[in-house]
Amino acid sequence: MQEKYLKLKGLLAEAFDLDRATAVLGWDQQTYMPPKGAVDRGEQLATLSSLSHKISTSPEIGELLEDLVPWAQTLDQDSIEACLIRRIKRDYDKQIRVPSEFVAEFARVTTIGQEAWVKARTDSNFASFQPHLEKIIAMRRDYSDFFKPFDHIYDPQLDDFEPGLKTTEVQAIFDALRPQQIELLQAIAARPQVRDDFLHLNYPDKQQWDFGVEVVTRFGYDWEAGRQDRTAHPFSTTFSINDVRITTRVLEDLVTSSMFSTMHESGHAMYEQGVDPSLARTIIQDGASMAVHESQSRMWENLVGRSRPFWKFFYHRLQEYFPTQLGNVDMETFYKAVNKVTPSLIRVESDEATYNMHIMLRMELEIAMMEGSLQVKDLPGAWNERMRKYLGITPPNDRQGVLQDVHWSGGMIGYFPTYALGNLVSAQLWEVINKDLPDLEAQIERGEFSALLGWLRMNVHRHGAKYEPQVLVERITGSKIDPQPYVKYLRRKYSDIYGL
Amino acid sequence: MQEKYLKLKGLLAEAFDLDRATAVLGWDQQTYMPPKGAVDRGEQLATLSSLSHKISTSPEIGELLEDLVPWAQTLDQDSIEACLIRRIKRDYDKQIRVPSEFVAEFARVTTIGQEAWVKARTDSNFASFQPHLEKIIAMRRDYSDFFKPFDHIYDPQLDDFEPGLKTTEVQAIFDALRPQQIELLQAIAARPQVRDDFLHLNYPDKQQWDFGVEVVTRFGYDWEAGRQDRTAHPFSTTFSINDVRITTRVLEDLVTSSMFSTMHESGHAMYEQGVDPSLARTIIQDGASMAVHESQSRMWENLVGRSRPFWKFFYHRLQEYFPTQLGNVDMETFYKAVNKVTPSLIRVESDEATYNMHIMLRMELEIAMMEGSLQVKDLPGAWNERMRKYLGITPPNDRQGVLQDVHWSGGMIGYFPTYALGNLVSAQLWEVINKDLPDLEAQIERGEFSALLGWLRMNVHRHGAKYEPQVLVERITGSKIDPQPYVKYLRRKYSDIYGL
Repeated sequence: MQEKYLKLKGLLAEAFDLDRATAVLGWDQQTYMPPKGAVDRGEQLATLSSLSHKISTSPEIGELLEDLVPWAQTLDQDSIEACLIRRIKRDYDKQIRVPSEFVAEFARVTTIGQEAWVKARTDSNFASFQPHLEKIIAMRRDYSDFFKPFDHIYDPQLDDFEPGLKTTEVQAIFDALRPQQIELLQAIAARPQVRDDFLHLNYPDKQQWDFGVEVVTRFGYDWEAGRQDRTAHPFSTTFSINDVRITTRVLEDLVTSSMFSTMHESGHAMYEQGVDPSLARTIIQDGASMAVHESQSRMWENLVGRSRPFWKFFYHRLQEYFPTQLGNVDMETFYKAVNKVTPSLIRVESDEATYNMHIMLRMELEIAMMEGSLQVKDLPGAWNERMRKYLGITPPNDRQGVLQDVHWSGGMIGYFPTYALGNLVSAQLWEVINKDLPDLEAQIERGEFSALLGWLRMNVHRHGAKYEPQVLVERITGSKIDPQPYVKYLRRKYSDIYGL
Repeated sequence: MQEKYLKLKGLLAEAFDLDRATAVLGWDQQTYMPPKGAVDRGEQLATLSSLSHKISTSPEIGELLEDLVPWAQTLDQDSIEACLIRRIKRDYDKQIRVPSEFVAEFARVTTIGQEAWVKARTDSNFASFQPHLEKIIAMRRDYSDFFKPFDHIYDPQLDDFEPGLKTTEVQAIFDALRPQQIELLQAIAARPQVRDDFLHLNYPDKQQWDFGVEVVTRFGYDWEAGRQDRTAHPFSTTFSINDVRITTRVLEDLVTSSMFSTMHESGHAMYEQGVDPSLARTIIQDGASMAVHESQSRMWENLVGRSRPFWKFFYHRLQEYFPTQLGNVDMETFYKAVNKVTPSLIRVESDEATYNMHIMLRMELEIAMMEGSLQVKDLPGAWNERMRKYLGITPPNDRQGVLQDVHWSGGMIGYFPTYALGNLVSAQLWEVINKDLPDLEAQIERGEFSALLGWLRMNVHRHGAKYEPQVLVERITGSKIDPQPYVKYLRRKYSDIYGL
């Protein structure tokens, strides 16, 4: 049986290597590829994906699983073998339910859809994107149908990004969260605003870059197993446990953009650098889910990077990088500025207090479209109505409203919730960490992060994708994903900043 | 039949894409990969190669060829279809003769061999490398045996790099070349040496980089379909016709190093950028052979870049980049310095007049080892003896002698001759070009290279690997590879510089 296990592992390691090669080609495309290279790169990426898919859905895998699944059930359920076979079985069963013609057709539809979205967004004209989104939603409904019976048509969508998570669970979480966030936002809106004008002076590129590097080096990002490059949109990408890269974009008129995105991406990257090497070249050499991944990036960006202890240590360094811009701004003023709450039209520019509202809005609309209770043609109206209800503002056009995100045009339905869930998980973990490391705040004030990173390595990172997200969160915190720690965290933080 | 042809093309396009992905991963490894990434990168490269090999040696290819080869013989023999099928048939027949166990074992032996060579070279101790080279030579002899009957045991080695070229042909070429080169070298040695001390001042990195970029931009290297990065050893690499990259290394105490290597690599790269797009994603989207490739790089580096007309245009620009270093050096003095002839121990540092001697020495030793007339244990002695005979110098140790090149440790036997053949072909082409473009020198003096590049595109580049090297050279010049134009070129050039 051991031999069959190694056979299965070896076959899928090839698919894994192809996927990592795809990641390298994708990274190169975003960082260094010359402009004319795009078309052929597309062919190369398509070939690698199709070969990987062919391997991981081959009948040979199915035959090996027939013997290995019962065997794995006799093992320690926390063993790598049991966890890996469970995950392979899960992915295999999902993949073979989806006909390859559907996969090819959906790739075609979303490629065209993304082009249409780019144009529609430029023209701020939802109508031109509408037929494409209608087709995409129809195909996502077909996709869900491959997984019948389901409790909810949105379940198979969600499950692609959050293994095992159900629509009713997420709805319950967000139903508990929504009124509390709205209440907090209204309380903040009633208070005088903090100033942040000095964040928008001219901050030269090189110093911004160097400060970001200094911060994440202290965090513990391993530069021997990673690097940072420039891209239009920051991301992190994994070529192996020993090569996890981050990218950033520096805006010279906004000092906070690159700084926090570097911390954010380093959070993703340290997660992947910290996976147990015995999981290497398997599909569980990965984060547990998008939400758990986001819990790591948001923790380093917000719970650490936007905290007062962090700035007690780092602010004088930042002032040294930017003496003319920040020499006369005291730390408290700066701290409040980087935590300013403003309802904004654009999700990616929004602050910790409003971010989840953008997410809930999107998820509700996704579910309504999947259920059929909302027609695509009515989406812009529904969007604007919710923006008014949740954030009190109305998009002046589709570009700054319903057309702002790439996700739907790329066929990603069920992805948005993971951002908000990540915020919630980050605060849940933070409560446990602070119990386990009672002097964490003092450590951060001294610029020490090794105990924090060590805790995350031990409790989160090393497990890779051995466990489903709810299982992992419950193992660590004693409960499944729960919005209360995040709400408590926001209340405490903003009560202090805004004097609620 | 057209359908079968497209089927064959489609199958091999997948292998081709895998090979281009391999090139991207290799490029990344040399340019940006963090140090810890090497081991996993090795696995990924091995997987991509093995999948590509599996596709291109699959029985399906053989079956398709059985029908397509006779069909191709009915077509215009210059058509893409005929040329492509001829080349696929050739490669397929070669590949299936070599058992995959041999390929795997040879990969293992050369991986270990390269490690042993690095150590032996560091220690300057041939004895520790000897058993590895013995094994490699024995396996190269086995490799040749797969291609029995052959005229010469070295033929199958050579054929891997120069399709269709025979050992006797190369020996005849070099037998004609050798005495003439030795005679020229002796005449030069009898003359007063030129000065080049000013090449070794401090030349800052950035200006060197910028000058190299300025030169190859004028040559016509397409930066929209390429880029330059830094590596320990310069190379060029092709991801597609629209993405052909070069690399360089800047030495601040030797202004000529990066400058000429950038010209050299741009020559390789412009070749691949100029291949007819209808050959894209086939194995004939490639240079005709290593020698033809080298004819392009050496032409831009030497026949153009080390010529007086070139410096008539570029020298004042170089002086503007380096006013303190070169302000008091006149163009003639500089021109002579970059053409200084000195017998040196190291091939890669040698000049145009001595370079081929290094190559002939290596090829003669390779042939002798393959024939069995030279034992590996006697190699260092044979090396040093030939160095004395050809260049009048004796290596003080193995590191600067027999251990200087990586090729043999990597299993590359038959590769060295291509460097010298490239020099010869470059001069043969140059004669024809100067007949077709009688005012080429004047154009170069004005910094105009578009007619030259246009000629190369039309006569060499666009054909890709449609023709075997000897066929291509004969199509263009009316004769097969011939050493006389190169000897004439060297004589004229050095008679002028050294006043012979």
